[in-house]
Amino acid sequence: MSIFPRLTSIVRELPATVPFVGPEAIERNRGLKVKARIGANENGFGPAPSVLAAMAQAAPETWKYADPENFELREALAKHHGLSRDQINIGAGIDGLLGEIVRMVIEPGLPVVTSLGAYPTFNYHVVGYGGRLVTVPYANDREDLGALLDAVRREDAPLVYFANPDNPMGSWNDGKDVVDFARALPKTTLLVLDEAYGETAPDGVIPPADALIDRPNVIRTRTFSKAYGLAGARIGYVIAAAETAAIFDRVRNHFGMSRVSVAAALAALADQDYLAEVKAKIAAARERIGSIAVANGFSPLPSATNFVAIDCGRDGAYAKAIVDGLMEEGVFIRMPGVAPLNRCIRVSVGPQSDMDLLAEALPKVLKKLG
Amino acid sequence: MSIFPRLTSIVRELPATVPFVGPEAIERNRGLKVKARIGANENGFGPAPSVLAAMAQAAPETWKYADPENFELREALAKHHGLSRDQINIGAGIDGLLGEIVRMVIEPGLPVVTSLGAYPTFNYHVVGYGGRLVTVPYANDREDLGALLDAVRREDAPLVYFANPDNPMGSWNDGKDVVDFARALPKTTLLVLDEAYGETAPDGVIPPADALIDRPNVIRTRTFSKAYGLAGARIGYVIAAAETAAIFDRVRNHFGMSRVSVAAALAALADQDYLAEVKAKIAAARERIGSIAVANGFSPLPSATNFVAIDCGRDGAYAKAIVDGLMEEGVFIRMPGVAPLNRCIRVSVGPQSDMDLLAEALPKVLKKLG
Repeated sequence: MSIFPRLTSIVRELPATVPFVGPEAIERNRGLKVKARIGANENGFGPAPSVLAAMAQAAPETWKYADPENFELREALAKHHGLSRDQINIGAGIDGLLGEIVRMVIEPGLPVVTSLGAYPTFNYHVVGYGGRLVTVPYANDREDLGALLDAVRREDAPLVYFANPDNPMGSWNDGKDVVDFARALPKTTLLVLDEAYGETAPDGVIPPADALIDRPNVIRTRTFSKAYGLAGARIGYVIAAAETAAIFDRVRNHFGMSRVSVAAALAALADQDYLAEVKAKIAAARERIGSIAVANGFSPLPSATNFVAIDCGRDGAYAKAIVDGLMEEGVFIRMPGVAPLNRCIRVSVGPQSDMDLLAEALPKVLKKLG
Repeated sequence: MSIFPRLTSIVRELPATVPFVGPEAIERNRGLKVKARIGANENGFGPAPSVLAAMAQAAPETWKYADPENFELREALAKHHGLSRDQINIGAGIDGLLGEIVRMVIEPGLPVVTSLGAYPTFNYHVVGYGGRLVTVPYANDREDLGALLDAVRREDAPLVYFANPDNPMGSWNDGKDVVDFARALPKTTLLVLDEAYGETAPDGVIPPADALIDRPNVIRTRTFSKAYGLAGARIGYVIAAAETAAIFDRVRNHFGMSRVSVAAALAALADQDYLAEVKAKIAAARERIGSIAVANGFSPLPSATNFVAIDCGRDGAYAKAIVDGLMEEGVFIRMPGVAPLNRCIRVSVGPQSDMDLLAEALPKVLKKLG
């Protein structure tokens, strides 16, 4: 059958890509079973018992739409960050928010600056709205703020994206440098500062919540998917000047949030003791991943996130063989997509049993690869 | 502070509207408390016990992203409808799917045909992508298929929308007429046939699942929000030719679904006995709403949905006074937005206690109004 012939000129040309292949698809396609799910930067320590209690309490109310204003969650986040409610808006994870941001700013052909090998889902949205990706290389496995700024100016780009701490490398820029970068931007360039891994960053990496709240051209994105252990709940939020946060209300799916997820996020935010426990576990698991890497002759990169990039010392084909080989052993990990980052594999933290499986499987795989 | 100056030409002009004000916002803004939530066409009979069990079981796994391919749910829906998996795609409720559909087809200025007073959320998306709404009036409180087809032809419209059964009137067109309408459309016009209320419709209203599967220009939308009692889970799906269903993969947020919600939808679909029970309760509640209307001198319209439109016999101002007055009594209902539909109020079904509150409050309100 032929396709509907009257798609927009943009959508007609788009491929049916998915930014990441899920572990479930890999299981189906390769007939394998994931035993250690440590590839998607999820958080296998899971949500707090208080969160599970809140979800159970909310479940019978799931016949009701969630509050389209997300009033209570915005209020709680504002209080948590010392901001006002109108400086927060909510979306279906940072992934959903990124789509909305791109839609706000990008008309076909406009340039969008990002780093080569940075977040594929952001790129997916840029291409989806007809934007033109302009990439700058990482410098020493870090996002290169100077090069990003140069590219913005050269291209007169309306949109620039980077993550701090960074995915997929786990590296970071100092918070002061991030603020300087934002303040140096032309007022006609919107910065998406993706702080998905903000909770696990060392002191000084995440600028104070109000550090850039005076800039209408800065949107900071945060999530409950990582340190809070709620990737499957799909709750992200933005911190922005009130005028900027309000733009989301022009385009978002107002009745788009899961009611149980919102309850989960509220409970997770309220349980900062649990978050502290998990952060300690994440730090310990990062150490463990590092030790396993070293024991196998590899170099773990310093990480401010819930994952560790491991330099395997050779090329992308070698790293890919390791990723594929580990999957044969039931260990699901991922790797950066482009050179020279793709000399690395990327391993997410997980409970002890997952780390043990990795420790057991990696030497086996390397032995096979020779 | 000034707004970011470089929004797209469309987004710059958009108002920050919400298609519907939620009952929570009404409570906050008016300092009232909803006792009977029978305004948003939710289903107060709630989800099945088997669904709550599935949600509880899935909750601890909410640290994992949902499968971006929604394989299992698409497989289950395909089996349920006697279709193949590639003829189904999934989204965050019909609301989310409508946004994706509009995005596929609408470039600024293109005409979109719908009925005057039909679904505001569809209109929200059309305006959001720069489309131009072309509306035709209802005929005898039903969507007028002949007039819709005329408008499509006159405007050479790439997109036409209607709901069957209809919201906000609860009326319906015969399934055979719907199929004839779809087959008479130009191949360059995409039909969104919104069947959100499909489960509560009488026999003959919903065409067989495969009735239009040979048409690349037809997308049927279904949901777990209504009869299945899962509005807060945000799970909708489309039935379409495989080539058409696949277009969603070019634009959707692949990692956008809540994991617990997907588990809820799977369990709801599996529990058709519970659905049958709820359908009987919905039918009884419709009868009860009708009796309450008649007892107060009003005329209930026949309904194929989980709500009843009640003709109050006067104008929109009068109907609005009833809606506002009922809210003072803690009874949340809504009403159609434009004349002549807005001579009606719209009451959603709910459990006995909600119906009792309505029966008690309505005469009080009418007495006050005189």
